[in-house]
Amino acid sequence: MNAEEITEKYKVAVIGSGNWGSVAAKLIASNTLNYDIFHDEVRMWVFDETLPSGEKLSDAINQTNVNVKYLPGIELGKNVIADPDLDHAVRDANMLVFVTPHQFVEGVCKRLVGKLRGDVQVISLIKGMEFKVDGPCMISSVISKQLGACCCVLMGANIADEIAEEKFSEATIGYRENKEVAERWARLFATPYFSVTAIQDLEGVELCGTLKNVVAIAAGFVDGLEMGSNTKAAIIRIGLNEMRAFSKRLSPSVREDTFFESCGMADLIATCFGGRNRKVAEAFAIHGGQRPFDDLETEMLQGQKLQGVSTAREVYQVLESNRWFDSFPLFRTVHEICIGNKPPSAIVHYNDFRKAEDKI
Amino acid sequence: MNAEEITEKYKVAVIGSGNWGSVAAKLIASNTLNYDIFHDEVRMWVFDETLPSGEKLSDAINQTNVNVKYLPGIELGKNVIADPDLDHAVRDANMLVFVTPHQFVEGVCKRLVGKLRGDVQVISLIKGMEFKVDGPCMISSVISKQLGACCCVLMGANIADEIAEEKFSEATIGYRENKEVAERWARLFATPYFSVTAIQDLEGVELCGTLKNVVAIAAGFVDGLEMGSNTKAAIIRIGLNEMRAFSKRLSPSVREDTFFESCGMADLIATCFGGRNRKVAEAFAIHGGQRPFDDLETEMLQGQKLQGVSTAREVYQVLESNRWFDSFPLFRTVHEICIGNKPPSAIVHYNDFRKAEDKI
Repeated sequence: MNAEEITEKYKVAVIGSGNWGSVAAKLIASNTLNYDIFHDEVRMWVFDETLPSGEKLSDAINQTNVNVKYLPGIELGKNVIADPDLDHAVRDANMLVFVTPHQFVEGVCKRLVGKLRGDVQVISLIKGMEFKVDGPCMISSVISKQLGACCCVLMGANIADEIAEEKFSEATIGYRENKEVAERWARLFATPYFSVTAIQDLEGVELCGTLKNVVAIAAGFVDGLEMGSNTKAAIIRIGLNEMRAFSKRLSPSVREDTFFESCGMADLIATCFGGRNRKVAEAFAIHGGQRPFDDLETEMLQGQKLQGVSTAREVYQVLESNRWFDSFPLFRTVHEICIGNKPPSAIVHYNDFRKAEDKI
Repeated sequence: MNAEEITEKYKVAVIGSGNWGSVAAKLIASNTLNYDIFHDEVRMWVFDETLPSGEKLSDAINQTNVNVKYLPGIELGKNVIADPDLDHAVRDANMLVFVTPHQFVEGVCKRLVGKLRGDVQVISLIKGMEFKVDGPCMISSVISKQLGACCCVLMGANIADEIAEEKFSEATIGYRENKEVAERWARLFATPYFSVTAIQDLEGVELCGTLKNVVAIAAGFVDGLEMGSNTKAAIIRIGLNEMRAFSKRLSPSVREDTFFESCGMADLIATCFGGRNRKVAEAFAIHGGQRPFDDLETEMLQGQKLQGVSTAREVYQVLESNRWFDSFPLFRTVHEICIGNKPPSAIVHYNDFRKAEDKI
């Protein structure tokens, strides 16, 4: 292979090395070895930390080929190189995979401005867009704007540890215009146990990944109140329908089919039967709403914050400023329960739900 | 109230008194008391049997107001009258609720021919239509043809015992043409804890109620093999998409929206996380497919047969005769696993699934 051929290959960097980032690196690393269009090496930027042993996390990953802290016991592939230097990690890369906690996105982008290749493409695996009163603040938009690069998203029913164990999963890539780019991303991620579909609905895919957490809070209330299978199925159904209606009002281009994809109903189901939003909301309902979410989060999540609770607040503000309350009684009620204005049992004030659907 | 007014009221008979039939009678009985358009009295036909005490079931129901055998502990309403005489039970009724085991439908209809009021309307709560090679044999069609009466259906995520406990549930009524009739049925069933919606898609609603059992078998395999949440969500998603595609091929009038109703995704979710189809399929997979379904059914269901297994066989025959195998790999694979031609793990031969969806 001569030098010219090498420079034509796509070079991948993964920005983030938590649980999901490490699994993403593992998926990608198996494909860069398999397909000639990709450089074998996958650089993974590690926000470095010192392990109890005194060793640096990045050194430990490079020596053992395992992310001993965030994905213990799973080999990432020998072609995954942990790199604590962000600038160095992205150098020469023209495929960037963003998989940091969402609060770091803006800072990381700022550090990358002017340091990337002109032909760089980006994909975001980050679920956590925000809703401002003047519109949704999508992670993919933040990245696109800051870096001046096209940004796709990958979402789906993707509990990282299960994919690490190579159990069958599906995912959805959302793209805006360039199908060829999206299909290249699909090729980079898809494996025999990870089935990836690209659809032309960037907004729809990204909105699903965030709104599902509000429904998961509702599902947790139902579990905590032991309301049974019929109620839970009803709440998930009503939640999906509010996700559809809300997404279409924010982005009229959102497609109906998106909700039948992995990013839609499949991720919603997985999140409403597993996941920390459901779990903490269940505890909240068991305590009759008498212990605030802040306390439960501190106790159950080691200080992490629940995305569902903050998303429900942001969604509520959008409903309020647009006078949309009547059409989204479930979204509205979740927030009102979270802040203690209504009891958890208010989640099944069904009559309101039905009237709303007639209007959607 | 004079005699003329009384004859104008709708009079309801419930044909069947099992678990779901008794709950239906309870729902209906609360509404016939509440709404003037209905006669208070609800006749419930009981296929009579002698209880261990020596008492007749119908007598026990009338004395205690509880179906001591099939819905113990739940008051049906004093206006529910158990009647072991079918002819007598339906006399004067012009709203008939069919809720027998599906194998009895044809026989009951034959006995009713010529004995019903000319203005009789029927609704079927029976999930269990069959697929013949020359088309689906819908319970609502069997009833319509035999009785010469219009027949609606009511389906949804409706585990009877939970509704008996007045936990929140939803249901969908499917009708063909007469919206007024469908809305009267909705009024007869809907309560503050049982939310009913009528939609103009008889075939779609009834098809959902049957096809979901095939997907539940697949979900049971996933549980038995401990494949995790991502896989289960993926299989439910793929299953719903095959339900949509199969229904539309059989009945082009089937509406997309139907799958977002309670009869669609909600019933599917409830069935894939609870229910006996899932449970026995889980046991089948735990035994590596080495113990036939017949044995497991005998052991786990006291001789009852799983609808999902027989429906999967019928669906397979429809796929075979139409050369539709490529578009329905999940439906196909469920049957092949059930009859021992493939191992339970074949349920995640994902590549086939994705290719099929591209064609749908």
